[in-house]
Amino acid sequence: MMDQKRYDHLLTTYRDGLLQDTVPFWVPRAIDKEFGGYTTLRLQNGDLLDTDKSIWFQGRFSWTLSTLYNQVEQNPEWLAAAKSGLDFLRKHGFDTDGRMFFHVEQDGTPIRKRRYFFSECFMTVALAAYAHATSDAAVGQEAEALLKKIIHLIETPGALEPKLFGNNRPSKALVVPMILLNVAQEVRKASGSSWVHELAEDCYKKIKNDFMNHEHKAVLESVAPDNGIIDHIDGRMLNPGHSIEAAWFIFDEAVHRDHDQDMIQTGCTIIDWMWEWGWDTTHGGILYYRDVMNKPPQEYWHDMKFWWNHNEVIIATLYAYYLTADKKYLDMHTQVHDWAYAHFPDKEHGEWFGYLLRDGTISNTAKGTIYKGPFHLPRMQIKCWKLLEMIKQKGLIV
Amino acid sequence: MMDQKRYDHLLTTYRDGLLQDTVPFWVPRAIDKEFGGYTTLRLQNGDLLDTDKSIWFQGRFSWTLSTLYNQVEQNPEWLAAAKSGLDFLRKHGFDTDGRMFFHVEQDGTPIRKRRYFFSECFMTVALAAYAHATSDAAVGQEAEALLKKIIHLIETPGALEPKLFGNNRPSKALVVPMILLNVAQEVRKASGSSWVHELAEDCYKKIKNDFMNHEHKAVLESVAPDNGIIDHIDGRMLNPGHSIEAAWFIFDEAVHRDHDQDMIQTGCTIIDWMWEWGWDTTHGGILYYRDVMNKPPQEYWHDMKFWWNHNEVIIATLYAYYLTADKKYLDMHTQVHDWAYAHFPDKEHGEWFGYLLRDGTISNTAKGTIYKGPFHLPRMQIKCWKLLEMIKQKGLIV
Repeated sequence: MMDQKRYDHLLTTYRDGLLQDTVPFWVPRAIDKEFGGYTTLRLQNGDLLDTDKSIWFQGRFSWTLSTLYNQVEQNPEWLAAAKSGLDFLRKHGFDTDGRMFFHVEQDGTPIRKRRYFFSECFMTVALAAYAHATSDAAVGQEAEALLKKIIHLIETPGALEPKLFGNNRPSKALVVPMILLNVAQEVRKASGSSWVHELAEDCYKKIKNDFMNHEHKAVLESVAPDNGIIDHIDGRMLNPGHSIEAAWFIFDEAVHRDHDQDMIQTGCTIIDWMWEWGWDTTHGGILYYRDVMNKPPQEYWHDMKFWWNHNEVIIATLYAYYLTADKKYLDMHTQVHDWAYAHFPDKEHGEWFGYLLRDGTISNTAKGTIYKGPFHLPRMQIKCWKLLEMIKQKGLIV
Repeated sequence: MMDQKRYDHLLTTYRDGLLQDTVPFWVPRAIDKEFGGYTTLRLQNGDLLDTDKSIWFQGRFSWTLSTLYNQVEQNPEWLAAAKSGLDFLRKHGFDTDGRMFFHVEQDGTPIRKRRYFFSECFMTVALAAYAHATSDAAVGQEAEALLKKIIHLIETPGALEPKLFGNNRPSKALVVPMILLNVAQEVRKASGSSWVHELAEDCYKKIKNDFMNHEHKAVLESVAPDNGIIDHIDGRMLNPGHSIEAAWFIFDEAVHRDHDQDMIQTGCTIIDWMWEWGWDTTHGGILYYRDVMNKPPQEYWHDMKFWWNHNEVIIATLYAYYLTADKKYLDMHTQVHDWAYAHFPDKEHGEWFGYLLRDGTISNTAKGTIYKGPFHLPRMQIKCWKLLEMIKQKGLIV
């Protein structure tokens, strides 16, 4: 059981960290009064690193702002800022072929488009959270329509330009059912459509049946069509923080489905397996990549410690404790929480550093990059705050 | 002046390192007797990391083998192995649109194609070195024809799919004149065509006039059409090891042009400037990326120490000493040589590790990856061995 003192400490850490540190770092600083949307590429002290805009972060920050409004306080400043990102995306986010950009200038001039569908996913969750906040059915329909477009892109051969050549090494990627599960969950909060609820279940089954390799006790990032290991560098790749993120998406689904025990068990198994792969027994913290055959991973940053992986593992382990009351998960949570809070927070300027070397040394002081911004950290703070309240309600505090 | 003892030490290090360590690590192990070409993705002990083939390394290793034949010893095993890579590339390297792949399976089945022209560049230098080795004029013409195709790709708008969107942020990349200079130099060794000689001069002028920023004393990796700094993360990026590589390509050009003093001065200025940016005064070694405004660089591995940057700086500083007899460059050479040899060589299995953390800790034990293989290290060993002989001939040894 969690003792009252630890509970109080954690609640303060997440709640006050969110409201007195993370949110004030980004609001109003990153709200672009001139062109709308957000300038999230930021130096350590919050000054601009670059005026360019990440399309992912137009959606992600908008989601964060609406979610603050929905779950923390109905602050009209947050809602107006959430709308600003959506309006910017509606105006500047789309290419003429209907697909979204990845990177634009401050005024929306397109700079880069990529061959994925993540910009679309992050706009969809932003629309859904805003529709939820405003009870605006039209925005909810906009979210559903964009989700349908994403599914169309995924299911239509050739709709996304191929990264791999032809079909010479067909594979399935974990990220597809994983992000669709999360997007479906967010859309479901704003709309009652049964197809969205069914999509979530379908995504769960794919994660469980296709990517969980029981022989190796590992969740693979990609598999062959028959769910076998593709025995090449990419195919052997494990991303523990990423698959543990999937575990807590699954926990959300389990809770929505009256504490579905199969889902809870699956999420716990993912945590059990991937903690073994991910926890760095030498320096502590979660390693970025591992190879399922224990060969050297390809990416240069495989042994670095990134903020987001730690956010996800902190959520998932606390969530597993809430669902199972198993002390094992509380211990894991303590271990990853304490390591993360000893290394990532910037005591001088607030918020978290994003990129540490394996031993915890700061490698990059930027607070916002094309991939880092006001999303993973505040999401963790909101989620863990709410989980703590649920843990208390369940009587798990002594 | 370099003393005799240091000279002997360096000569042994480069020559014996090449012939007794680097070459035996790769030959015959990486020569694919079954499908032709090379399997260069290797673990620390030389075992396969992956059966897949890097198209870059089919060209690069073939170049290394022909260059060993041309400059070290007319070993028929090396020449036959050089031909094997060329034959593999002729058979499996090209897509139906005439452009080359990036990554194929062991049998040549294409896996990945990229939007650059580097596969073509590395095949061109391989053809040229082989033509030089065999005095086969037809292969020399094949090299010239491929170089013409590269220039066509570069000069034809839309021939390479755009990475940046449209023409919203036009830029010029240092890598274009830099690699073309090196390719032209290699082709010139096999053919006397005057256009190739002129191309080399044109590339030199572009490097000097477009990318050397005198205000910041920095060689930029990309610039605006008017040669100004593009004040965004990508545009501010410096790659000291890369620009110092350009310096020794320029030195090669200077030597070919009767010790052209303008070229020698330019190469020395590049070394002077970029050493200041690149040398890590905290841990030693050459940092991968810097930002010309001293902001955090974008790439996660910006502060890592890679083998190839050190190979290039070792060559360039020794070359500068040969050309100028300035002790400053000998000191730089000693500094980077000693740091590199204290950290990169694998005393257990031979060859060099490729990827170190900032403090010199080994981050990845792979000997061969899609980007690392038998190229930069043996090229440095051959080049520095020959430079030492030239330094001795010039009477710079006491």
